[in-house]
Amino acid sequence: MAETMKGLKRTHYCGTLTLSQKDHEVVVAGFVQKTRELGNLTFIDLRDRTGIVQLAFDDSTARDVFEKASSCRAEYVLAARGVVRERESKNKDIPTGEIEVLVQELRVLSRAQTPPFEITDKTDVKDELRLRYRYLDLRRPSIQHNMLLRHNIMKATRDYFYDNGFLEIETPMLMKSTPEGARDYLVPSRVHPGSFYALPQSPQIYKQLLMVSGYDRYIQLARCFRDEDLRADRQPEFTQIDLEMSFVDQDDILDMLEGYVHHLFREVMGVELPLPLPRLTYKEAMERYGSDKPDTRFGMEIIDLSETVRGCGFGVFTGALEAGGSVRAIVGKNAAATLTRKAIDKLTEQAKGIGAKGLAYIRWVEDAPSCSFQKFMSGEELSALIARLGMERGDVALIVADKNKVTLPVLGQLRLTVGKQLDLIPQEQYNFLWITEFPFFEWDEEQGTWVAMHHPFTMPLEECLPYLDTDPGAVRAKAYDLVLNGTEISSGSMRITDYELQQKMFGALGLSAEEIEAKFGFLVEAYKYGAPPHGGAALGLDRLAMVMCGAQSLRDVVAFPKVQNASELMSMCPSPVDEKALEELGIGLRTTDKQ
Amino acid sequence: MAETMKGLKRTHYCGTLTLSQKDHEVVVAGFVQKTRELGNLTFIDLRDRTGIVQLAFDDSTARDVFEKASSCRAEYVLAARGVVRERESKNKDIPTGEIEVLVQELRVLSRAQTPPFEITDKTDVKDELRLRYRYLDLRRPSIQHNMLLRHNIMKATRDYFYDNGFLEIETPMLMKSTPEGARDYLVPSRVHPGSFYALPQSPQIYKQLLMVSGYDRYIQLARCFRDEDLRADRQPEFTQIDLEMSFVDQDDILDMLEGYVHHLFREVMGVELPLPLPRLTYKEAMERYGSDKPDTRFGMEIIDLSETVRGCGFGVFTGALEAGGSVRAIVGKNAAATLTRKAIDKLTEQAKGIGAKGLAYIRWVEDAPSCSFQKFMSGEELSALIARLGMERGDVALIVADKNKVTLPVLGQLRLTVGKQLDLIPQEQYNFLWITEFPFFEWDEEQGTWVAMHHPFTMPLEECLPYLDTDPGAVRAKAYDLVLNGTEISSGSMRITDYELQQKMFGALGLSAEEIEAKFGFLVEAYKYGAPPHGGAALGLDRLAMVMCGAQSLRDVVAFPKVQNASELMSMCPSPVDEKALEELGIGLRTTDKQ
Repeated sequence: MAETMKGLKRTHYCGTLTLSQKDHEVVVAGFVQKTRELGNLTFIDLRDRTGIVQLAFDDSTARDVFEKASSCRAEYVLAARGVVRERESKNKDIPTGEIEVLVQELRVLSRAQTPPFEITDKTDVKDELRLRYRYLDLRRPSIQHNMLLRHNIMKATRDYFYDNGFLEIETPMLMKSTPEGARDYLVPSRVHPGSFYALPQSPQIYKQLLMVSGYDRYIQLARCFRDEDLRADRQPEFTQIDLEMSFVDQDDILDMLEGYVHHLFREVMGVELPLPLPRLTYKEAMERYGSDKPDTRFGMEIIDLSETVRGCGFGVFTGALEAGGSVRAIVGKNAAATLTRKAIDKLTEQAKGIGAKGLAYIRWVEDAPSCSFQKFMSGEELSALIARLGMERGDVALIVADKNKVTLPVLGQLRLTVGKQLDLIPQEQYNFLWITEFPFFEWDEEQGTWVAMHHPFTMPLEECLPYLDTDPGAVRAKAYDLVLNGTEISSGSMRITDYELQQKMFGALGLSAEEIEAKFGFLVEAYKYGAPPHGGAALGLDRLAMVMCGAQSLRDVVAFPKVQNASELMSMCPSPVDEKALEELGIGLRTTDKQ
Repeated sequence: MAETMKGLKRTHYCGTLTLSQKDHEVVVAGFVQKTRELGNLTFIDLRDRTGIVQLAFDDSTARDVFEKASSCRAEYVLAARGVVRERESKNKDIPTGEIEVLVQELRVLSRAQTPPFEITDKTDVKDELRLRYRYLDLRRPSIQHNMLLRHNIMKATRDYFYDNGFLEIETPMLMKSTPEGARDYLVPSRVHPGSFYALPQSPQIYKQLLMVSGYDRYIQLARCFRDEDLRADRQPEFTQIDLEMSFVDQDDILDMLEGYVHHLFREVMGVELPLPLPRLTYKEAMERYGSDKPDTRFGMEIIDLSETVRGCGFGVFTGALEAGGSVRAIVGKNAAATLTRKAIDKLTEQAKGIGAKGLAYIRWVEDAPSCSFQKFMSGEELSALIARLGMERGDVALIVADKNKVTLPVLGQLRLTVGKQLDLIPQEQYNFLWITEFPFFEWDEEQGTWVAMHHPFTMPLEECLPYLDTDPGAVRAKAYDLVLNGTEISSGSMRITDYELQQKMFGALGLSAEEIEAKFGFLVEAYKYGAPPHGGAALGLDRLAMVMCGAQSLRDVVAFPKVQNASELMSMCPSPVDEKALEELGIGLRTTDKQ
């Protein structure tokens, strides 16, 4: 049997001991990071979630304690009572590096097999092995730091919203599946064989009902689920900071959220964000950055060349303009050394891969700029172009001529690529901005119909209501995204509370009365009994934590993540279940799947 | 179109206005509770989540505002700008009863149909209707109060544990199903057709792994699920205050939890609980109260009569003793008027219904006690009995003679029934106590084997380890329940961290190596790599909220509850789903269920 803590109480966490505890008797406990012997001395680095402290054993140590210390190996779990003393050779790299604990009593609380990989941040162990032994991977200081930071985010979030009168109200996880819920996880019911619940993709319906019920301000850190093939960085379950406010208009919500991110970054990161946050309309964001989630940590904004090249000699440009498109460019300052012809060829491939027909460029290396379309333009025309682009020697311009829905996103993507190549993106800078006035409808080419870009309860801008029947494409929504360093971290909107207008919106979306009833019956009904004007937002906690931790993957900010195919490598789930269990649920496996 | 909040900002919640805002211009918003006209005056009671304020409209009110006010009906949603003035006729029943708001600007934000029931606490509407229109039911002040109190419980809980160094770490909802998981909700996977996740019955495995990973102190307010026929007061999903601590022994955990309930009741209820909380061993609780969750708000403890009646003339008593059982009683002081012969007949039925062969009694109404077994006992024997029971005129004793596993729980139940009948249970009193030293094993008559009373990772008391092989029934666990007013609100234990001991426990439970691997493989494996001594507990948040709210049902402290058959009446889930959706999941309905 291993020893126990009986009669021994930890007095300090390992990482907190300094010279101010000198000569104090302390009790510490933790995992053995490493042991070493030095002549007649033995040292053990003991690790807990706060850091590492050095345990020392010398000539004055009782023989049995010394022998016990010598028997310890990596990841053994120990408790030690001893006296803090100043070290002879100090280690400036760690906070406890000036002291050590001269141990008088040592207990081996648990022995450990040699782990399949060393517990250290300097690891190049394969992800699969790390995830299979996640409980060991979670011992690494960098992941422990991430978990602590995530905890701090949750705490700061609740503190802020609670202080602002938001109530946390838990909404159901077992809810109604909607006919269209292609991404719903379904849950068969033992009590009702053949019937199913769905796990929530979000608490959207419930939080709107809570406003109808007069709860006024709601917040929930809610687990949400999406059953789909996972893209590179998605988890089938994720956590949403979900909120809703009554008796407000859009600006009230944006103000509240700005206060939140300001509080969050001050409390968790010690960073003072300048308020108010910048606001761009969707249109402006697309025209300047070619993206509705622009990374504004660097410039390189898109320049509209349409007027400059109108009537020029280059048919690709004039053709695009005649077809109602535009000619636009980005300019890489001092980029000529990096953006060689070969590099530009690669960018051209990238541009073509996302829909461009080609990529024109001006590259100014020597005295005069060289240009992919030199022979089609007069010197004057080229000079005008260079002037419009503000180019100087050393610069490179990349130009796309096409419809706006090609030029803008293609240049937006190239901007990000080139920004990285030129190392223009400062780390540890946090650029928030709002994107507002999203288009309400999107034309779905496949289905030949307008579809809502947001959920169908999103409120249009009042001034756009007249276009609902005549020009759906011109209707903008009271919807807003919060973007941080090029990542969308929040999405929200004002909601429709007017029954008549809601019916009209459904009509514009081509929904029949039956579809409405099946999908949203009780919610639509609820609004008949009075509802305050309300709106809200949802922030992705995992993504926020990832950006704030500077992590490369969601897996580094989730304690027990799943991999890309939605399975968990430690417990190996999902897994087959007993036929008997399925029988009770009124379901069976399809024979084609049994093989 | 309804009016909007544009240009109008709420300055106060309705229920917060008093004479200290006299002559101030304010903006309030809410739902119409009722309207009334009095000569040339119109009044509207406006309700939000904080209370009600009276809006007044008189001769000085602009004509259009007055007309708008007159058009308002119950549950219309309004915003009003006006000036606070002292009321002529004050209402002492509500906090805002000394003032009213003389309205200058009124906006009708939403009209409302007449609701199917009035929004008031004085309602006798049927549960089914209330739950179907839950969004209206949730407008009732008493439920809003419960939701606020639940929020406050969650806040006080997190504050306390966070301040004590606990980290909130989210564990997966989509986890591995275990072969024995008869109560698991299963979730089929679209990515892995034919395979299933399970929703957690608790995060038990994950929190133990987090201790193995060195997180030291963990807390989570975790949603848990149990798919079973619902007993009177169960919900298929419920919230657990789940925690775990490392480098501690049992007393450290009890101390931490005592500090928690003290903090909770001070912060949320303004009640100072006396610490330390009483502790009873399981054995003592059973012998004194016939229950492992005794309600100690009243006495009426069980009295052991075995020694007193040994060798007496009543064969029922002596027979029970000879068979190794006991004779025990409870005494209702001054109970004779309530516990008539007829009432005692009913109690006898109750006792028989839960396993007793019968119920003996002594009822002392007149000068001398009368007794159901008078003719079998001498006067001396009876006097000794009366003396042992401490009976006086007016008292009633109820006596059960049987094996201990009958006498104790039967008298425990009768004690509760009689306590209620005699109105002995004080309301608004909060009696906490610990039950410790639970038996480790329970003999399962059906299966003819010892089964673990707690989960199989529970640590036995060190002093009981020798009995593991020789006398499993004598092994007690380092397990503890926290009981409040007769309700078990927390259950916890120290965990086994020693691999060898764990194997031994599995052996004692008759588990084969294959079963161990299938059920707990990765958890057992984890403990090979070192683990600190640890233990924890889980508190039922819903049940705690119910007791603290003085609610009669869990449904009154859950925003969107399910009814007894696990369905939700508002959205009508669970429900059938498309065949196509099932196909994608690799499952189908059983034909017998399709009919």
